[in-house]
Amino acid sequence: MALIVQKYGGTSVGTTDRIKAVAERVVRTADTGDKVVVIVSAMSGETDKLINFAHKLSAHPKEREMDLLLSSGERVTSALTAIAVEALGHKALALSGRQAGIITDTVHTKARIEKITGERIIKALNEGYVVVIAGFQGVTADKAEVTTLGRGGSDLSAVAVAVAIQADRCEIYTDVDGVYTTDPNIVQEAKKIDKIAYEEMLELASLGAKVLQSRSVEFAMKYNMPVMVLSSFTDNPGTLVTKEDKGMENVVVSGIAYDKNQAKLTIVNVPDKPGIAARLFDSIASANVIVDMIVQNISSDGKFADISFTVPKTESKKALEVTKKIAKKLGAERVDIREDISKVSIVGVGMRSHSGVAAKMFRTLADHKINIMMISTSEIKVSCVIDLKFTELALRVLHSSFELAL
Amino acid sequence: MALIVQKYGGTSVGTTDRIKAVAERVVRTADTGDKVVVIVSAMSGETDKLINFAHKLSAHPKEREMDLLLSSGERVTSALTAIAVEALGHKALALSGRQAGIITDTVHTKARIEKITGERIIKALNEGYVVVIAGFQGVTADKAEVTTLGRGGSDLSAVAVAVAIQADRCEIYTDVDGVYTTDPNIVQEAKKIDKIAYEEMLELASLGAKVLQSRSVEFAMKYNMPVMVLSSFTDNPGTLVTKEDKGMENVVVSGIAYDKNQAKLTIVNVPDKPGIAARLFDSIASANVIVDMIVQNISSDGKFADISFTVPKTESKKALEVTKKIAKKLGAERVDIREDISKVSIVGVGMRSHSGVAAKMFRTLADHKINIMMISTSEIKVSCVIDLKFTELALRVLHSSFELAL
Repeated sequence: MALIVQKYGGTSVGTTDRIKAVAERVVRTADTGDKVVVIVSAMSGETDKLINFAHKLSAHPKEREMDLLLSSGERVTSALTAIAVEALGHKALALSGRQAGIITDTVHTKARIEKITGERIIKALNEGYVVVIAGFQGVTADKAEVTTLGRGGSDLSAVAVAVAIQADRCEIYTDVDGVYTTDPNIVQEAKKIDKIAYEEMLELASLGAKVLQSRSVEFAMKYNMPVMVLSSFTDNPGTLVTKEDKGMENVVVSGIAYDKNQAKLTIVNVPDKPGIAARLFDSIASANVIVDMIVQNISSDGKFADISFTVPKTESKKALEVTKKIAKKLGAERVDIREDISKVSIVGVGMRSHSGVAAKMFRTLADHKINIMMISTSEIKVSCVIDLKFTELALRVLHSSFELAL
Repeated sequence: MALIVQKYGGTSVGTTDRIKAVAERVVRTADTGDKVVVIVSAMSGETDKLINFAHKLSAHPKEREMDLLLSSGERVTSALTAIAVEALGHKALALSGRQAGIITDTVHTKARIEKITGERIIKALNEGYVVVIAGFQGVTADKAEVTTLGRGGSDLSAVAVAVAIQADRCEIYTDVDGVYTTDPNIVQEAKKIDKIAYEEMLELASLGAKVLQSRSVEFAMKYNMPVMVLSSFTDNPGTLVTKEDKGMENVVVSGIAYDKNQAKLTIVNVPDKPGIAARLFDSIASANVIVDMIVQNISSDGKFADISFTVPKTESKKALEVTKKIAKKLGAERVDIREDISKVSIVGVGMRSHSGVAAKMFRTLADHKINIMMISTSEIKVSCVIDLKFTELALRVLHSSFELAL
């Protein structure tokens, strides 16, 4: 008899028919004798609808009120899912984030979970209930304010609840049936990964593979909670996200991610003096723009430098403005911006024990005349910024070169 | 400087444009220096949509989960309204029923308000906020469960909050601009009533004039809270519901109500023995059917009786079944049912000090060949059950006979 947390995303509970299907899956699990806690997102489209309403009323709606507003969507699905489970003859109890004891800090719209007082969940499970919890939301420690955890927060709710009640595993149901070696919409040969290390998943999640939210992977890694990514539309086995084990090192590259939502800025010919990078990125940070990759080249005579960096495309205008100002002060020649770029990354814990992986990536891209504009590496990943139009080609040739389809 | 509670119904907050209009009215009031607490219903259609979802999933959704489900609608409008008020430059704080301290008993879907701990409301008002509270909902004393107050519960929330914070008055904004002498859709000459006594409003509310929910009128009467019924679509002055005063007695009949949602059952020729009525209505009460009017006639020889009574049309099948069973046991000849009836009632506190009011009603109906099937009277009202098809005629001739248009 296992204790299982199942999380269902927005498309999985998008209609009453879909909620019925979720209830059937939940009851099927519960009928095997397992104890089941269900975490649900809002019905797909609901959160966007409410955000839309708020923005029709105000250019800058207060975050406290946004939390009260948006938390209603998951309450609706938790109640509906519990009702659907009961209709199938199994006891079910719906709980809001507050009722489930999900205590957060007071930072509205992106609160952090501080603790989960899981007594009510455990009590209900012991009384034979399936417990259905509204994801994405919590309450401040004094119970005065409703908070939300930010986009994708329901994944985090699920993992955190799983950790708090010491579940055997956390199952994340979504509209894809697992984590793939790369985007199957682009590379037909993309293969579902059976098992992936937290670190790899984390790189893939933050690199643009939208299956699982980064914070929830971090949380699972911290507490060593096994996470299964599954489809709520099929009975396929899914992908297990877990602690790195020996076997995983044999696989050099586990997956290839891409991100088309970045823009690249370059300050050309800055007189190279100590502290120019610090001054530049201080100014950009003060404008609340998050910088991803940074590359600095020094001219052959050592007098001038080019500094390139990438920012989210949505922030590129703001970043350009700030950069132009600081470029003038630093005496740089000009600032260039390119929005037609993408970042392609190979990820794998096996890189730690294998050499030549980055070189193989560069060679593969070069063989296909794909120019690399920027490079950034970590222990388990290599990222290259390339021309946007080569993204799909790069994914295909890298996928084949690293033999991920085998 | 006054302390005012304003309640806006579902159509008044039915779209973001309507919410904007509500915010404008609220800010207009607040800008005069008055302190304003706003109670909002769910956007029109939302509650029905959610009920529909639940019934698609289960024939008998649990009431606890229904409360969690339905309470979300008012949370949405409270947040949106606060956001709209802030956009107009006035501080606003949205509160759920729980956050506003609306404590109820534990009877889900029709909870009774036990008390309102208004500290947070008062504190926010003193800090210059417009406070926007989600109507219709509360929380149990231990804070464990969310409850709702039943249909029309937002009116009750408004009056109860007004009483708790000792407001100067409670304004109920709806889609009509006050209480009329009768339905203006039927009688063109119907006139808006400027001022009406709680008792009269109570009779009109329970008799089918849907402007104000009965429980909220009872509550207002109990605590002597003046209630204004107004339209959120106009700036017309509305109707004041208040304590009876001397002037009101001069008006014999204040309004005429009708109810087309009743059915009439008659047990014909029951052998008249003591206790037959008790046995009959005990059985009907056990079936949870609410009986409105009851009339009993004894045959001229005193051996047989006819008993007629009315029940809500929705309950008529169930009532007929129970009545047929008991009729057999009592040795009655048969049970008749009529669904093509309506109840027309004249209401007025002035009846207490004027005689001949009932007689005038009967004569007016008789003059127009409208047959009266049943009669029921109270201190301030006379009700007649008539043929459904004469409802409109009856309203018109009574309205004219009692000179309500003057």
